[in-house]
Amino acid sequence: MKDAAQIIETAHEMADAARQAILPLFRSADLATDNKRPADFDPVTQADRAAEAAMRAVLARRRPDDAILGEEYGAQEGSSGLTWVLDPIDGTRAFLCGAPSWGVLIGLSDGDKVIYGLIDQPYTRERFEGGLGRARLLGPDGDHPLRVRARGDLSAAILSSTYPEIGSEAENRAFTHVTQQVRMTRYGLDCYAYALLALGHVDLVIEAGLQPYDIAGPLAVVEAAGGIVTDWQGGSAAGGGQVIAAASPELHRAALALLNG
Amino acid sequence: MKDAAQIIETAHEMADAARQAILPLFRSADLATDNKRPADFDPVTQADRAAEAAMRAVLARRRPDDAILGEEYGAQEGSSGLTWVLDPIDGTRAFLCGAPSWGVLIGLSDGDKVIYGLIDQPYTRERFEGGLGRARLLGPDGDHPLRVRARGDLSAAILSSTYPEIGSEAENRAFTHVTQQVRMTRYGLDCYAYALLALGHVDLVIEAGLQPYDIAGPLAVVEAAGGIVTDWQGGSAAGGGQVIAAASPELHRAALALLNG
Repeated sequence: MKDAAQIIETAHEMADAARQAILPLFRSADLATDNKRPADFDPVTQADRAAEAAMRAVLARRRPDDAILGEEYGAQEGSSGLTWVLDPIDGTRAFLCGAPSWGVLIGLSDGDKVIYGLIDQPYTRERFEGGLGRARLLGPDGDHPLRVRARGDLSAAILSSTYPEIGSEAENRAFTHVTQQVRMTRYGLDCYAYALLALGHVDLVIEAGLQPYDIAGPLAVVEAAGGIVTDWQGGSAAGGGQVIAAASPELHRAALALLNG
Repeated sequence: MKDAAQIIETAHEMADAARQAILPLFRSADLATDNKRPADFDPVTQADRAAEAAMRAVLARRRPDDAILGEEYGAQEGSSGLTWVLDPIDGTRAFLCGAPSWGVLIGLSDGDKVIYGLIDQPYTRERFEGGLGRARLLGPDGDHPLRVRARGDLSAAILSSTYPEIGSEAENRAFTHVTQQVRMTRYGLDCYAYALLALGHVDLVIEAGLQPYDIAGPLAVVEAAGGIVTDWQGGSAAGGGQVIAAASPELHRAALALLNG
């Protein structure tokens, strides 16, 4: 890709801008929250909006021809064939609790697939980057390569999902087929679960009811680390919905069989 | 307490020593684990043992007359009337996943109650301190006072518990009475949940099956921040077992009623 260096630079500038917008509000007592969907609890914060606005301002200046799909401010058309898919704060409930498992998600799609992405955790100063030749964690203690671990056996696997009460009743039943076979299941990690899978410490992430902006960034990071991300039928996960990320083809196959068993 | 300054200094030196022992092993690929209780999964790591040994070495040098109760190396008698209660890594499962919700727990009991404690998170460089006149978070971005938030209404409360499958069947039923009344329940936070309660972002923590060393440090931190920690009957939590921590007397009362209803 001829623009790769400029794209990567832009993405990091966006993540820096989001950090700056969010950090003063994280764990601040006067956090204003409101509610988009009163029937289905979904906290949205000032921080969410400020961060997406800050990222869009970077794109307007540096890459005005790219399209944008963002959680807070919707879709904006472009002419370059590239679309930035933004979730300014994935894990707003974790954010409300003060727990640093939320993240800023940035994905870049070429219309066919997600080719680059970031998962950024501003408080821990961890940035997980994947695609366009990168697969690394830029952390407070330096850089670390991202590489999934090769572990084929489901009974040895660590599974993560944000909510135990995942998805619909049928989705929950399918999910339980997997939790019963793995070594352990951890909850409450939000996008950080994908980051830990890319880092080689988690083997499976299974979720349902995702939006495209929930998965674009993580998808690029996990794939760049050698992992597999699909929907529960083995098709593209870029549209959201039911998503599974696996550290190896064997685990992916075994978990899909259980989800559809 | 006449020794207060020297006690506090010793505790910080212990936490520093534990950090140094643990951090090289956190997220290291070659982490050796074994299993104390094969029937009831409980990973124990090299890091766990190295950290407790390092803390005991500090006590041997600085406060040889105090007693010690530690997760890894058991009880050691003393003559001062004070007992250090140590959990070198609370949240070993989180540790195995690479998630920074585990912590080093240090509590100091005078035989009657826990008078001082630390919850230390080495990776995020956050140290929550309570007792002997202290109530603060020493973080990477400076010091913050610890103070629970005053929120009396259960329907607005954020509840945290490490496992959705908490305790026995009866305990799980009792716990569910509370989850059905609160605004949201977050899982997977281990000792970090108590730290966030002390910091004013979580309102309730409910757990079962704890050991004394799981709760000594958190108890001191939460009480110093103005919170309440008891067992599910409203008695002392220092012995472990069923534990509830609440940000206000109203929440504590309401949750106890549901747990025993």
